[in-house]
Amino acid sequence: MAYRETAKVRDRKALTEQRILQASHELVAEAGFAALQMNQVAQRAGIATGSLYRYFANKETLAAEVFRQATEIEVDHVRRCLQQADSCALSRLEHALQTFAERALKAPKLAWALIAEPVDPAVDQQRLHYRLQYANLFACAVQQAIDDQLIPQQDPMLSSTAMVGAIAEALIGPLAQQAQDPTHAITHTITQFCVRGLAPFRYSVTGASL
Amino acid sequence: MAYRETAKVRDRKALTEQRILQASHELVAEAGFAALQMNQVAQRAGIATGSLYRYFANKETLAAEVFRQATEIEVDHVRRCLQQADSCALSRLEHALQTFAERALKAPKLAWALIAEPVDPAVDQQRLHYRLQYANLFACAVQQAIDDQLIPQQDPMLSSTAMVGAIAEALIGPLAQQAQDPTHAITHTITQFCVRGLAPFRYSVTGASL
Repeated sequence: MAYRETAKVRDRKALTEQRILQASHELVAEAGFAALQMNQVAQRAGIATGSLYRYFANKETLAAEVFRQATEIEVDHVRRCLQQADSCALSRLEHALQTFAERALKAPKLAWALIAEPVDPAVDQQRLHYRLQYANLFACAVQQAIDDQLIPQQDPMLSSTAMVGAIAEALIGPLAQQAQDPTHAITHTITQFCVRGLAPFRYSVTGASL
Repeated sequence: MAYRETAKVRDRKALTEQRILQASHELVAEAGFAALQMNQVAQRAGIATGSLYRYFANKETLAAEVFRQATEIEVDHVRRCLQQADSCALSRLEHALQTFAERALKAPKLAWALIAEPVDPAVDQQRLHYRLQYANLFACAVQQAIDDQLIPQQDPMLSSTAMVGAIAEALIGPLAQQAQDPTHAITHTITQFCVRGLAPFRYSVTGASL
């Protein structure tokens, strides 16, 4: 009897936590982490502010978790692009970069919050963690492209971190202006910048991709 | 008489402020912004902690000013590289990127603090500001390179922000490991990544620069 009670409470808590995170995600997607205020979150989630603090000790912890969940989704998309078996490593990389940029431009406010908004150090720490995770994913593809002699010998991690930085930083301006880019000129330019950085001979002789 | 008194006080205040900023800079260069504690700053500057607060209302304001001064020095170095009249726009750009990376690797702890350390939003705001300033400087050189037909038509600002991101992000790993790189392999790789990103034909046909 005591056990069933506990399981029920646990389920209800899990649901409430989910509701809190959903409400928080919406606020961030609408107006960045600056809009993540505890009383606003509580109101949108339909709970008392006091109860909210039982789930998340402070705004920083909540922000870090919102960041983590939103970024995991983006990382998953990139990972899936890189796992497609039916194309060469460079095409997969190009597809992954393009997908990352396109998704960002489709949800500019959220992407801006995740990539560039000045945030609490706890969230910044997560940013470093995930940028390293992106770089690790890219580095596998770069290594594969080297093995397949598509690009010359190079430090895969150094090139991959450069790509992560290039794509993130190049998006900041367009995201801040909430650019809608139906022609994909922005994503194409950034992707080509990155891929050409890896491969002096392949992409240059065929060229003309700017 | 009152005027001279005031001038003297003003001079003494300016000197004290300079001593505070010097002490703060040293702490950050030794162990990052995490080491910037008001009591530590006061001790090293040889003043009472209470007096310190008369100069800087809080740690965040002090940190932002330390960041600003240290970054201005780096921006100046990049600017000077880009102003050298005796070389083409692409060579100047290459030189500026190389200089930025070399200086970072020579003072890895300070560079890490300026580029990557999770910091207060006030400092993060400064980071955005200065990264934009770097990008603006690069964009002038990119535009010049386009005008001189050294590289194809492209959005100079988009390419320049990509370069700023690439160089900053690629340095984070080596800086975190406090890599000393006497062979300049790191700076060379990053610089080439950036410059190749701009120029599919120039750097590819002559190629082999990785």
